[in-house]
Amino acid sequence: MGELRHRADQFTVLVRQVPLCPEHNTRGCAVDHFFSKHHRFSYHSYQMLYDGKDLEYLLGKQKKLKKELEDKRHTDMLSNGSQEHKISTSEEKLREITNMICHLQSETMLREKELPVAFVTFKSRRSAALAAQTQQHSNPLELITEMAPEPRDVSWRNLAIPQKLLPLNKIGVILAAALLTIFFAIPVTAVQGIAKYEKLKKWFPPAMAIEFIPGLSSVVTGYLPSAILKGFMYIIPFAMLGMAYLGGSISKSNEEIKACNMVFYFLMGNVFFLSLISGSLLDEIGEYLTHPRDIPSHLAAAVSAQAEFFMTYILTDGLSGFSLEILQLGLVLFDIMRSCTYGRGKERTPYLFSFPYFRVIPTVSLSIMIGMIYAVVAPLMLPFLVGYFCLGYIVYFNQMEDVYEATYDTCGRFWPSIHHYIFVSIILMQITMVGLFGLKSKPSAAIATVPLILITIAYNEYCKIRFLPSFKHFPIQTAVEIDEEDEKNGEMGTHYGDAATAYNRHQPCLERVISSAEAPTNLSQPLLGTESI
Amino acid sequence: MGELRHRADQFTVLVRQVPLCPEHNTRGCAVDHFFSKHHRFSYHSYQMLYDGKDLEYLLGKQKKLKKELEDKRHTDMLSNGSQEHKISTSEEKLREITNMICHLQSETMLREKELPVAFVTFKSRRSAALAAQTQQHSNPLELITEMAPEPRDVSWRNLAIPQKLLPLNKIGVILAAALLTIFFAIPVTAVQGIAKYEKLKKWFPPAMAIEFIPGLSSVVTGYLPSAILKGFMYIIPFAMLGMAYLGGSISKSNEEIKACNMVFYFLMGNVFFLSLISGSLLDEIGEYLTHPRDIPSHLAAAVSAQAEFFMTYILTDGLSGFSLEILQLGLVLFDIMRSCTYGRGKERTPYLFSFPYFRVIPTVSLSIMIGMIYAVVAPLMLPFLVGYFCLGYIVYFNQMEDVYEATYDTCGRFWPSIHHYIFVSIILMQITMVGLFGLKSKPSAAIATVPLILITIAYNEYCKIRFLPSFKHFPIQTAVEIDEEDEKNGEMGTHYGDAATAYNRHQPCLERVISSAEAPTNLSQPLLGTESI
Repeated sequence: MGELRHRADQFTVLVRQVPLCPEHNTRGCAVDHFFSKHHRFSYHSYQMLYDGKDLEYLLGKQKKLKKELEDKRHTDMLSNGSQEHKISTSEEKLREITNMICHLQSETMLREKELPVAFVTFKSRRSAALAAQTQQHSNPLELITEMAPEPRDVSWRNLAIPQKLLPLNKIGVILAAALLTIFFAIPVTAVQGIAKYEKLKKWFPPAMAIEFIPGLSSVVTGYLPSAILKGFMYIIPFAMLGMAYLGGSISKSNEEIKACNMVFYFLMGNVFFLSLISGSLLDEIGEYLTHPRDIPSHLAAAVSAQAEFFMTYILTDGLSGFSLEILQLGLVLFDIMRSCTYGRGKERTPYLFSFPYFRVIPTVSLSIMIGMIYAVVAPLMLPFLVGYFCLGYIVYFNQMEDVYEATYDTCGRFWPSIHHYIFVSIILMQITMVGLFGLKSKPSAAIATVPLILITIAYNEYCKIRFLPSFKHFPIQTAVEIDEEDEKNGEMGTHYGDAATAYNRHQPCLERVISSAEAPTNLSQPLLGTESI
Repeated sequence: MGELRHRADQFTVLVRQVPLCPEHNTRGCAVDHFFSKHHRFSYHSYQMLYDGKDLEYLLGKQKKLKKELEDKRHTDMLSNGSQEHKISTSEEKLREITNMICHLQSETMLREKELPVAFVTFKSRRSAALAAQTQQHSNPLELITEMAPEPRDVSWRNLAIPQKLLPLNKIGVILAAALLTIFFAIPVTAVQGIAKYEKLKKWFPPAMAIEFIPGLSSVVTGYLPSAILKGFMYIIPFAMLGMAYLGGSISKSNEEIKACNMVFYFLMGNVFFLSLISGSLLDEIGEYLTHPRDIPSHLAAAVSAQAEFFMTYILTDGLSGFSLEILQLGLVLFDIMRSCTYGRGKERTPYLFSFPYFRVIPTVSLSIMIGMIYAVVAPLMLPFLVGYFCLGYIVYFNQMEDVYEATYDTCGRFWPSIHHYIFVSIILMQITMVGLFGLKSKPSAAIATVPLILITIAYNEYCKIRFLPSFKHFPIQTAVEIDEEDEKNGEMGTHYGDAATAYNRHQPCLERVISSAEAPTNLSQPLLGTESI
């Protein structure tokens, strides 16, 4: 609770589709008018979003120039004053850019770059929760409110996408992810076909060198297709994250949750189902759609046949996954490649990444799914899975503590997705059970299992109405409780004050410029503060 | 707007799943505590709902006794004092019942009959709108709020259904309506089979009398099956309304809207599709599901073949429907039957019904659908339809003005349903178009029509997000506007005061008893008033 009480997003509502104020011809004015009229006693201030492409470009340029200047000064000191002229021109350029940024960041200039998006801060969590969950304008497509994400979690670039295009973006991303999932096998098998050792020799003669080392040739022939598949698989989560980014989520955490879902379905299709079936996923989907009655028995037969394969999968891929996670092989490779190519000679900036939920959760969920399904078919797999999860716990505990940095608070928002994956696993397990009883010629047992599936679905529906709203809305009761605690401590004012400035501070195009040369006077003042009432 | 400003429901929120207050062990207390804490400045009062079966029974009995007593007094006056003893025992009985009712309506007795449902009144429309649209309790299944229906529109008996059973009720009603729609043809054809003149002669010999009137026999043979079908059809809307009542809607208007939807789909299946196809609706549904690709051409062929039938349908059924509506034949028959059987000799209470939207809207929508579909296939039907609609306008205008009574304000809440029926009609029309172009061997035209269907669906989705919320939520902007107008006139206090008592006044079990004998003192005080703060 203590941690929660300092969150700026609890006081803030994200407002989209802000209309233009007919009098003053600005959107900020419209937000201010509306909320000070309709939420008179609880409205505190607003912060508009600006189209900051030019500004961001200039800020980037300024940073680069500053660094160059520092470097030059450094070399200058070593070589004793030979490049003074160069330095002074650089300084002149830097000053010019800084002035330009200051000019663009001035109130009047920003007003022209207003986007129809605003962050509105209220004087209490209760009022913010009320405003976020209600329809404000009589036109439901104007002044759409929702709870704001954490300031550091906001996806600024996505907020600039016009609301009208969002449905298209979403449909596009879902389509792209579905196509990638269904047709993934085609490029992989194509590359695997090309990368056969015999063909390699033909196209890339130096590869023949392999033959001179005894035994290596068989290793290459054996492992190359598998390595290619693994390589493709490793890229998928990042590709999905990139696609989710295009989907127009308002926060980075939402993007990651979306990517997480897409990766899970990808793994389910291309690792689980593709291992079960002979032929492409597309053929199998067509088969299932035309004969939906045969699904259980088909599934049960395929699952029984592949028990050994999945045991090997858990033992090899699972454990190799953990060692790769510790070694951070992907990052090492990426870093080596970067330093050898475009980044050669550049000073390396130290990097620290956030925990890759979108990669880890689907992988672990896939193991849960395999465990669930084989709990009926081949229960001997379970001890291996217990070992896998224990090892995973140790590995990820270490990684979370020492390797990754928390860039935002997930607040358990991944749980509904994990719940959904487990639900899908249980349903698949029960369908397999029905098929298995059918195969073992126990039709009564098979029929008796069908109600179990219905009960599972009903339970899932219950969970949706009982627990899912807690992830979507901030209940008034909780808001009032935290508010009252704050009021008792007399911290309310500072908290909502902090909240009002937080979104201003984090907006990338409003970053304050500190010129190393003379600082213009207007820079020492707070930049286009949130207009308070 | 003037009319709208006096509506009690705008100040009131319906709260369901009220928990028990742990201190005082009553639910009323819990409501009061919660809202006076979490909506401190805007909460006005609450009104619990009580389980009033006993009370309603007693109130009914009291009314009956009172009437008997009056009758007796009347006859007594005529026969000059011979039944005084009887009258005094009746008076004694009436007084007893009245006292019992007063006792049961006392605060302490009612407290034991509390249901977990309350009407909470706020001091402004804005606060009520805010509370109705937000999640109050941290458990989303407790203190569920929604906008209250109009006091006279509340379905008191449905509110007593525990929230847990509601999903079952809803699923049950949908299943029942679907089964009735699909299997309706079976009992009808069965009865039509039995009611053949030849068989009638065998089972009911007096029917032979028909033969003695020349020509009547052929009329009976020709019209009996049709009359039976019409009879069944006439009962359907009332059966659907009865089913909708079991579905647990919170208001009578919602029940009617549900019944309206069910009747529309019934008519679409059993008048439109059953006329198109040869064989039962079930067979055809099975056929369509297994070969979805053939739907357009099938539909187009069947529609083209039946153009004449539907023209006759519009001319006969449409016009006969209007004359039946004016004659109120159903009510006349019902009244005759009642006065001949159980109601014989009873004094008739004058009745006045509300407009039967659930019967009229689906019938008119069906005509719109036929018009839409035949606009492509047989455009000559359109002039007849125009005639039909003109006549309908005159007939229903008269009926609305002079015949029916408005029991509640629909507030245009039937429009989304009508919009949906028109959408379904347009989609069917476009599918028929695709089929028709296919049949005329114009594949390019058929393919070019497919995007039209997609655009129609997209437009429907747009309407859902643009217009549907206006029927579900009361926007804050509108609420504040009306509030401000009220405040200007200084009428706010009286309006929310009225709203607070309205739900108390309309609750059937809290009806005030006015004993014709000595009125107990506690009766002169307002009955268990809304506890104001």
